[in-house]
Amino acid sequence: MDYDRYDRVRAVQWQGDHLRLLDQRLLPQEERWIDCRDAAAVTQAIRDLAVRGAPAIGIAAAWGVVLAARRGEPLEPALAMLRAARPTAVNLMWALDRMKARIAAGADAAALAREAQAIQDEDLAANRRMGELGAALIAPGSGVLTHCNTGSLATAGFGTALGVIRAGVAAGRVARVYAGETRPWQQGARLTMYELVRDGIPAKLIADSAAAHLMRSGQVQWVIVGADRIAANGDTANKIGTYQLAIAARHHGVKFMVAAPSSTVDMATPSGEAIEIELRDPAELLAVAGRRTVVEGAEAWNPVFDVTPAALIDAIVTERGVIERPDAAAMQAMFGR
Amino acid sequence: MDYDRYDRVRAVQWQGDHLRLLDQRLLPQEERWIDCRDAAAVTQAIRDLAVRGAPAIGIAAAWGVVLAARRGEPLEPALAMLRAARPTAVNLMWALDRMKARIAAGADAAALAREAQAIQDEDLAANRRMGELGAALIAPGSGVLTHCNTGSLATAGFGTALGVIRAGVAAGRVARVYAGETRPWQQGARLTMYELVRDGIPAKLIADSAAAHLMRSGQVQWVIVGADRIAANGDTANKIGTYQLAIAARHHGVKFMVAAPSSTVDMATPSGEAIEIELRDPAELLAVAGRRTVVEGAEAWNPVFDVTPAALIDAIVTERGVIERPDAAAMQAMFGR
Repeated sequence: MDYDRYDRVRAVQWQGDHLRLLDQRLLPQEERWIDCRDAAAVTQAIRDLAVRGAPAIGIAAAWGVVLAARRGEPLEPALAMLRAARPTAVNLMWALDRMKARIAAGADAAALAREAQAIQDEDLAANRRMGELGAALIAPGSGVLTHCNTGSLATAGFGTALGVIRAGVAAGRVARVYAGETRPWQQGARLTMYELVRDGIPAKLIADSAAAHLMRSGQVQWVIVGADRIAANGDTANKIGTYQLAIAARHHGVKFMVAAPSSTVDMATPSGEAIEIELRDPAELLAVAGRRTVVEGAEAWNPVFDVTPAALIDAIVTERGVIERPDAAAMQAMFGR
Repeated sequence: MDYDRYDRVRAVQWQGDHLRLLDQRLLPQEERWIDCRDAAAVTQAIRDLAVRGAPAIGIAAAWGVVLAARRGEPLEPALAMLRAARPTAVNLMWALDRMKARIAAGADAAALAREAQAIQDEDLAANRRMGELGAALIAPGSGVLTHCNTGSLATAGFGTALGVIRAGVAAGRVARVYAGETRPWQQGARLTMYELVRDGIPAKLIADSAAAHLMRSGQVQWVIVGADRIAANGDTANKIGTYQLAIAARHHGVKFMVAAPSSTVDMATPSGEAIEIELRDPAELLAVAGRRTVVEGAEAWNPVFDVTPAALIDAIVTERGVIERPDAAAMQAMFGR
């Protein structure tokens, strides 16, 4: 497969002495880069969503540790600061644990840079493998619906759910792509459509609330999403709206796939009940594109993730393999120690 | 009940010689009024969504006929033009049929004005009656979720679904109100929150895709929505996203209520399959608040209504009474000739 044909964006770039991040808040109107020269700058970029997507957050945080080491800063506070930047994505914790283990083993800044690069390279390889595994589940000529952005922007490249879609398009299995807007940050509208148009993959944007009507029309056979954390029983935390799509998919007999690297699996979390759901500023719902759209005095409730129970998931795809109809036993067999 | 306490907006106002419409595209930032002096101006206001909400559209169209009659214009073309302004809302057709019957009976402009005023007055009375009937179904202390705007702005006053919520708040039955944003036009964010804040009813705005997560939290016991058309078997066309809410509600054991005047019932439409769903300009999804948010070259699919099957509806509330678990027989018993 010609991967480069379908994968043209790199949002997290190590520049030898600093980290360059494509500011995802400004896309697609503006391609502005942020140069991070210390761990605090990386932390802020994660917290403010300049870099987002669970795998990309983990990679950026690993480079944040490298920056701290190169400046001779104490590493424990840097690790703690980066870890607290976002609560839901477990890849962040996983990447920092890898860096911490290298620090404990006495690694210097150069060795830490090699570890961060390894995390980044492995993520890209994992995504390409997932793409092949996930696409193989899709019958030729299928329509797919995705949510949020899970593409090159959200990862080291190629993407998780969007990687499966890219591989499916390349293999002639995916004939129609729909992307939900993903309020309030519009990752689907702003970022997924940006990637798909750049790649020349025909796709249609829909309002998040049009998904069930779309499913009823028979135009989609799979919903394919990424994950921010997968619990030991297969329950999956992902962008707000994912759970609603899973319920609608089951109602219509549409299949539901989660695609995520194994670093997203958190066997220490027994079920979705134990996953902390990040609540963000209500202001994100009260203004659109920087302009106040809701009357003064209004309140909002803004959870940005939800949990999809394993029972609503038809397949979890990681680089290690596919789990169909996931449950605790199947998860333990693939991810237990 | 002190109706005025909970009902402070009148969006459709006959001024003796012309029709004043509150431009709902600009709310809540700006309260600008449009003065319509002929049927073409009313048609354009309906088509452009300056006036929206199925009952309000019907009332405005009736006044459009009065304007044509006062100007001595031929009435058949005016009726046809107004009828074609929006395809899904049946109240529009119903109101124009009432005007047409008066025209056939030889009514002059003054008599037509009395008919339009009757349509408007009856709508307000129907909404107050629906409010009482609907609120009686709600257990004290309940939370409710609504979608789109079904309030004073969408009707002659008080509202349909929002009227039930107003009556429920006044009766101490509704303790928590949540409103979905309702992309792409943000009627929930812009209009429902505007009405609720003006009335002093505590409410929280949510992203449309947060509804299932909210239901799972146990905070809502009823979803209450309006309707643009109710078929003879109880299938209900309403704002895009309604169907998705009905599926999620059933999944969680949350009750689902449709509140609409009997003029919304179309016994000539056997089921939802026969309802024309309006597709609007994809551009509505490609820009937000007038600013392009999606990459150039992107496409979108923009159905603005969907159909909720009667089997997912727990109660249809009209001013004639309540139908629980609606089906063709129960509909025929209440609305058959």
